[in-house]
Amino acid sequence: MSGTTFTADPRFSINQMTVKQLSLPELVDGCRELGIQHLGTWRAPVQEYGVEAAAKLLRDAGLNVTTHCRGGFLTATDETERKAAIEDNKRAVDECVTLGTNVLVLVSGGLPSGSYDLGAARERIGDALVELAPYAAERGVRLAIEPLHPMYASDRCVVSTLAQALDIAENFPAEQVGVCVDTYHIWWDDQAPAQIARAGAQGRIATFQLADWTTPLPEGVLNGRGQIGDGAIDMRYWRGLVEAQGYTGPIEVELFNDGLWARDGREVLAETVERFTAHAV
Amino acid sequence: MSGTTFTADPRFSINQMTVKQLSLPELVDGCRELGIQHLGTWRAPVQEYGVEAAAKLLRDAGLNVTTHCRGGFLTATDETERKAAIEDNKRAVDECVTLGTNVLVLVSGGLPSGSYDLGAARERIGDALVELAPYAAERGVRLAIEPLHPMYASDRCVVSTLAQALDIAENFPAEQVGVCVDTYHIWWDDQAPAQIARAGAQGRIATFQLADWTTPLPEGVLNGRGQIGDGAIDMRYWRGLVEAQGYTGPIEVELFNDGLWARDGREVLAETVERFTAHAV
Repeated sequence: MSGTTFTADPRFSINQMTVKQLSLPELVDGCRELGIQHLGTWRAPVQEYGVEAAAKLLRDAGLNVTTHCRGGFLTATDETERKAAIEDNKRAVDECVTLGTNVLVLVSGGLPSGSYDLGAARERIGDALVELAPYAAERGVRLAIEPLHPMYASDRCVVSTLAQALDIAENFPAEQVGVCVDTYHIWWDDQAPAQIARAGAQGRIATFQLADWTTPLPEGVLNGRGQIGDGAIDMRYWRGLVEAQGYTGPIEVELFNDGLWARDGREVLAETVERFTAHAV
Repeated sequence: MSGTTFTADPRFSINQMTVKQLSLPELVDGCRELGIQHLGTWRAPVQEYGVEAAAKLLRDAGLNVTTHCRGGFLTATDETERKAAIEDNKRAVDECVTLGTNVLVLVSGGLPSGSYDLGAARERIGDALVELAPYAAERGVRLAIEPLHPMYASDRCVVSTLAQALDIAENFPAEQVGVCVDTYHIWWDDQAPAQIARAGAQGRIATFQLADWTTPLPEGVLNGRGQIGDGAIDMRYWRGLVEAQGYTGPIEVELFNDGLWARDGREVLAETVERFTAHAV
């Protein structure tokens, strides 16, 4: 490692989407160079590379896969759609097994067309987990329900708060269903600290992810997650809350950001490593 | 009134911003033609027209001014800025008096640059109201704290839920400080129904506004409020909750929408009247 290269904090994990401009081998090289020990994978690029091949590549590089993203989209009312979603989630669990990670992150899904009923949609997520959670648990994989920011409630994820995620998770053993705590989605919520404590008391903090909140939000509000340190979120505050509950696992930086994606991926990777140390350690 | 013109429901109120392409006299003409009895005003266009002249125009047309929008922006830490904001809010109260409305809607303001502390910002709002609320009450004006959607928490309004708005309002007599219930901002919140009941029990529902939730959100997420009936919000459900608490006042449609603003204002006004009847009556 060169003298000018910043070495990653041992808790740092890079989500593959943060530097999606890098191929998987490029990302693995970058991790080696920067001393990154953990990585979160994303289904589409892993499938494109080949799940077995990706697993071998990561294993050979000694990289720990912290999470696989993402299953979910379990809110359909149409029976055919619902069954297809459950089957697809089982495939995602199988991918977790191949990749050697024990956490599948779930983005639960939005409202079906024409429906107004967020509560009923959340109930259907719980119904789907009755089938999915044991399937995953038998394979050593825990499902992590991720609350997404309320701005995604209609079209992406009807689970908008940690409280709602835990309300669903509580119907299952903690080793089967946990939650994903992501600063980007919960930072605005004055109830979130108490809900992190609730999640911790139940042993349900399955993963902890970081992204910063920057404005103005881009059209569609998907790809505006800020680089750590650029926005309104106090990373150390949230890390402190999660660690007060005994969370000692890797901390994944997951950014969707058109600006970052337009830059050189290795440069963004190094910057992310530095920002993590500067703002979250 | 022509036979083809739809007549507005007697509870319908049009917020001036919904059809900001119309001058105040054009809007008044449109209200007369469509039988609209209530209107919510906005500071900038009223000031531009002249507050006294606007008041006379609306009074002569027999229009009831339901709210004046907007005061607020009370989160500054800088003392000069804070004092200027309070003075500006007093001017907004004075405008309410001139216009003959008893409700000033407050958009509370975002985080000061470099600050992470939403809770402290909310405390400063309460501090400012200690001076503002009596000033307004002495003039027959009630302040209505409007929670804005959490996607505005950093840059526009640190009050993101009805619960937070009521936590602040409760420090003041109900006749001095109420809340603004706007479907656009609260529809995602599973705690909102209980908070509407809390607001109702305290007599703090100062105004009820409608806008629909449509996606994709536009860049900056300010001007994408959907026309009634175009989105994910069940207007009759929320109207029912508010009316179960005894709210019988006008219901204001307040849309910020680049698409609607690009169209003929009279056509949008007529469409809004029709949509209100179709989806909210």
